[in-house]
Amino acid sequence: MSETPLIDCLQYANWSEKIFRQMHEGGVHGVHVTIAYHETFREMVLNLEQWNRWFERYPELIFIGRSGDDVRRAKVENRTAIFFGFQNPSPIEDDIGLIKICHTLGVRFMQLTYNNQSLLATGCYEDEDTGVTRFGRQAIAEMNRVGLVVDMSHSGERSTLEAIEISTRPMAITHANPARWHQALRNKSDTVIKELTQSGGMFGFSLYPHHLKNGSACAVTEFCEMIADMAGRYGVEHFGIGSDLCQDQPDSVVTWMRNGRWSNTTDYGEGSKTAAGFPDQPDWFVNNTSFSNISKGLHGVGFCDDEIAAIMGGNWLRFYDQSFGPEI
Amino acid sequence: MSETPLIDCLQYANWSEKIFRQMHEGGVHGVHVTIAYHETFREMVLNLEQWNRWFERYPELIFIGRSGDDVRRAKVENRTAIFFGFQNPSPIEDDIGLIKICHTLGVRFMQLTYNNQSLLATGCYEDEDTGVTRFGRQAIAEMNRVGLVVDMSHSGERSTLEAIEISTRPMAITHANPARWHQALRNKSDTVIKELTQSGGMFGFSLYPHHLKNGSACAVTEFCEMIADMAGRYGVEHFGIGSDLCQDQPDSVVTWMRNGRWSNTTDYGEGSKTAAGFPDQPDWFVNNTSFSNISKGLHGVGFCDDEIAAIMGGNWLRFYDQSFGPEI
Repeated sequence: MSETPLIDCLQYANWSEKIFRQMHEGGVHGVHVTIAYHETFREMVLNLEQWNRWFERYPELIFIGRSGDDVRRAKVENRTAIFFGFQNPSPIEDDIGLIKICHTLGVRFMQLTYNNQSLLATGCYEDEDTGVTRFGRQAIAEMNRVGLVVDMSHSGERSTLEAIEISTRPMAITHANPARWHQALRNKSDTVIKELTQSGGMFGFSLYPHHLKNGSACAVTEFCEMIADMAGRYGVEHFGIGSDLCQDQPDSVVTWMRNGRWSNTTDYGEGSKTAAGFPDQPDWFVNNTSFSNISKGLHGVGFCDDEIAAIMGGNWLRFYDQSFGPEI
Repeated sequence: MSETPLIDCLQYANWSEKIFRQMHEGGVHGVHVTIAYHETFREMVLNLEQWNRWFERYPELIFIGRSGDDVRRAKVENRTAIFFGFQNPSPIEDDIGLIKICHTLGVRFMQLTYNNQSLLATGCYEDEDTGVTRFGRQAIAEMNRVGLVVDMSHSGERSTLEAIEISTRPMAITHANPARWHQALRNKSDTVIKELTQSGGMFGFSLYPHHLKNGSACAVTEFCEMIADMAGRYGVEHFGIGSDLCQDQPDSVVTWMRNGRWSNTTDYGEGSKTAAGFPDQPDWFVNNTSFSNISKGLHGVGFCDDEIAAIMGGNWLRFYDQSFGPEI
């Protein structure tokens, strides 16, 4: 067993004891979980309250993570540290003071946008990306100050490049893949990946089928070859996993993710009217016990043990250590 | 200078640099400040945000206190630790999950009622006190669990006695005086003071003129003789100061405290139509530099140095140590 913890930097499952036990069985020590797609501050707090109930109910399996050391503690105690994040800045409403409040409540990642224009920046589904807004510039400075990571996974190209430029601390794209491997609105250009990684940022590879070459039929070797290509181009130290696992979710949830309360007609996002629901996961990555398939795949494409440990958690751990405290 | 920190367990001033500097000059190491009278959760968070701005602006004077050790740290660093409390349970709305959330945000005291009936218990201005409600019983258990102190300063007699009975941890009446000394709806009966102190609870003496014998004209010796009487009856270890200092507040604030949004006619609380505003403070207690007058007064009525240190902060410090962490 590796000395390095295993971290998945994005999941949004239909949480249950079963899933927490799978994290335990799979030896997953840190998971960044989404607690808001379109929620207001008060609605997001309701989701925190639900997590508090899970922490109270399953203390032998999970606890709230606030720092990199909590991942190390999770490994020692054979539990999983849960880190909170927003896929949309809706919980901070129009109030910059809520950034510090959310950090105090344990939130560690916030996307400046989901798929649409937000108050902070432009999402990757808008026709025109006007970059980081006036509020967005202030919010990035405040996130940098308190230690709330800027995540641009769902943002447009221009907004992402501007955020990288504005942010004084390394940023993250927690869950996406390179567009050169699989063309998709959510996958990222060489320019974005280069600028992100050169500024010390982290990129998490997604296992969400719409982000994969050949979708649900993508082979683990294809996925790992893509990782090898990226590591060769930009350096292995900037990459990790952000699986985007949405285990056990009913299709109503992907409808909520895509449509929130903003549309009277149905937006299908990366799906379509005839394939509106969650796509099937590739058979080699179905739940939290599947990470060993990726490790094996990485070995198969030529990574050494240290590199595999770095990709499977070590790189995120270093980033967590650097990112979650106040700016020095 | 005493080795024991100085703690005031209730203030609601119109906060300013001037007042924070007076805390510094007066050597006040811990202050429990009110951050909600009638606010919803979201409105209370706005008040927290304002405190965050003050902490950022005056780091040499104040910081957020979360434990007794923060008071010790304040004394070493010559600063003041600020502890948050609610005078009304309105910020937890009808949602028990908000108790843990508020504790995470730093809240350490919550009154089960202000002057009126609340969702949890009955305030001391209602004609009939029906005791702790169904939600109130659950809320006390949750407050005990997480380490949020039950404060019954504004509650009715029956509600207070029931809360003492229900609570598995010592409670507080942070700011009131004995009714035997000065009859007032807000002052407490011998029965309440006896039950509170016998269960390990703390009682903070108020300097708010409506709670004082002879009001604004009360002499420091009268006040200290009352303390000596109480210490003789129930033991010096259960008493401290909760001044209820409302320095520099405009009279609109006492109107808000008394009326919130619940009345179309004006309630004058302890005042009257012809004396609707804040009463004048006694000349020996006007701001945070005045605590030495109380110490001298306590010496004058025969307390020894150790007893004075206990009343001026040591007793609250012990209570803070015991009360602010999760139930063991």
